[in-house]
Amino acid sequence: MYREKIKVLDCTIRDGGLINNHDFDSRFVREVYKAISASGVDYMEIGYKNSKEFFSTKEYGHWKFCDDDEIKKIIDGVESRTRISVMVDVGRVNIDDVKPASESPVDMIRTASYVKDIDKAIFMANHFADKGYETTINIMAISKDMGPELDEALDQIEKECKVNAVYIVDSFGALYQEPVEHLIKLCKKILKTKEIGFHGHNHQQLAFGNTIEAIIHDANYLDGTVYGIGRAAGNCPLELLIGFLKNPKFDIRPVLDLISKEFIPLREKIEWGYIIPYAIAGMMNEHPRAAMALRKSSKKEDYREFYESITNTGLD
Amino acid sequence: MYREKIKVLDCTIRDGGLINNHDFDSRFVREVYKAISASGVDYMEIGYKNSKEFFSTKEYGHWKFCDDDEIKKIIDGVESRTRISVMVDVGRVNIDDVKPASESPVDMIRTASYVKDIDKAIFMANHFADKGYETTINIMAISKDMGPELDEALDQIEKECKVNAVYIVDSFGALYQEPVEHLIKLCKKILKTKEIGFHGHNHQQLAFGNTIEAIIHDANYLDGTVYGIGRAAGNCPLELLIGFLKNPKFDIRPVLDLISKEFIPLREKIEWGYIIPYAIAGMMNEHPRAAMALRKSSKKEDYREFYESITNTGLD
Repeated sequence: MYREKIKVLDCTIRDGGLINNHDFDSRFVREVYKAISASGVDYMEIGYKNSKEFFSTKEYGHWKFCDDDEIKKIIDGVESRTRISVMVDVGRVNIDDVKPASESPVDMIRTASYVKDIDKAIFMANHFADKGYETTINIMAISKDMGPELDEALDQIEKECKVNAVYIVDSFGALYQEPVEHLIKLCKKILKTKEIGFHGHNHQQLAFGNTIEAIIHDANYLDGTVYGIGRAAGNCPLELLIGFLKNPKFDIRPVLDLISKEFIPLREKIEWGYIIPYAIAGMMNEHPRAAMALRKSSKKEDYREFYESITNTGLD
Repeated sequence: MYREKIKVLDCTIRDGGLINNHDFDSRFVREVYKAISASGVDYMEIGYKNSKEFFSTKEYGHWKFCDDDEIKKIIDGVESRTRISVMVDVGRVNIDDVKPASESPVDMIRTASYVKDIDKAIFMANHFADKGYETTINIMAISKDMGPELDEALDQIEKECKVNAVYIVDSFGALYQEPVEHLIKLCKKILKTKEIGFHGHNHQQLAFGNTIEAIIHDANYLDGTVYGIGRAAGNCPLELLIGFLKNPKFDIRPVLDLISKEFIPLREKIEWGYIIPYAIAGMMNEHPRAAMALRKSSKKEDYREFYESITNTGLD
């Protein structure tokens, strides 16, 4: 019943870090790592590998930088087959700071890129591949970039890039099933030698459904986060994804424990999930930036005004 | 871009009533009716038409019984093209108490039935049709009844029943997109003269995605509730459904106002939405009964124990 090629990647700490300046304490990150390892999940993405020349360590926690030594403190002594991933953004990392894979606790580096930056992303991903890492390119905000420029970018990746997989990233939570089907089929057609991945955002409660849609059309790299934590509405809940996949290597119970003990209390302190301004941003195919600002203001529940500010229907 | 035949039914008060003993006060119900009317939604289901000989008026509020006079108090003086629906359960209503449609504020009666009770449901639905109502049969818990007995029931409805539409009801929130596709196609094949409807439950965050799936395969009667209120994890959020459908007759703004003013405060008092024990029940294709009991106990966040009690994995 199950498809052995499917790889599940937990990006709880990486995407969750976007709502707390990447400032999870080491105890918490280690608890996540232990649970993810015990549940049999293939990869855990522990943060961004940004350079300290671009961002202040006073403003951001460890998981904005992912120093090898910090990662080692998390994983040392834990029995695990889970491989460690970090994400890099085009233009925010000094690639010469990245050691060869043989000297690092990191197994995979995922390069996040907009379609317009694909040349830079290919250069970076090839650099990391040459250093011995597994690599992917994650094409962000793809719901804004579905025209011929996407075909070109995919074609260029296929011809020039050594990545193992290319991800469709629905950054704005704007995709419905039919566009997901279209995008995965497009990728399968052009990327003959790469696996396809899917990373959903949950603004319209479609991250899990869209991930299933991606699976149906043969995406094999799938992202989730514990209890759906992540920027704005968050991501595909890992526990639902594990519950859906039939591979006996997965055990949902460590993830359930982790939610009980760590994520229910955490959700009292920081906000993510189904929240109307994020849903509106998703419907409008917009970055959740304005909705995130609204949620920090006294107008956090003024949905109509927010809707009208985005659509200008108030001017009719 | 839009399909004119699509009808949206709001069942906020009816399905929401399952978590507060149908005891919404008249002011609240009228606010919902005003917003639903202003948003252009086709139907509003206001409750169950159960007989008082079977249930106590001390234990349950008005919307368990839906007396015509109570409905009139809600709708009188509100400009509206929204039609009023009530639901009946097989065996819980004295059909002779139901007046002819011409004497009632109710426009549609939906008969909820398990596959095993389909003979009774057909009898009841025909009785209501003869009294002049629009009618549907809503086949509950269909994820437990997908074998040949379902084909037979559908065949019998097609041959013997006057209903306008037949609904697939995913009572346990257990269906993924592929079973939804299968069920809608099966219905379309057998029910040549009826419309097909879909009512999703949101245990696995799939109510909206599955409703889209049903639309793709030509279901035209679609249920939603404001802010997804409903038993356990609740239903397809009406605001997402309206946001998805392109019919210009719909206006999301009155629903957004209603959520701001009424549903955010209500959610502080009663619980629905994405809650892990409901997700587990959905994964296991079980009624949320045990999960609902758990949420009222001191073990409400003991997910692993609950999971093991359902799956018996603790005995391995």
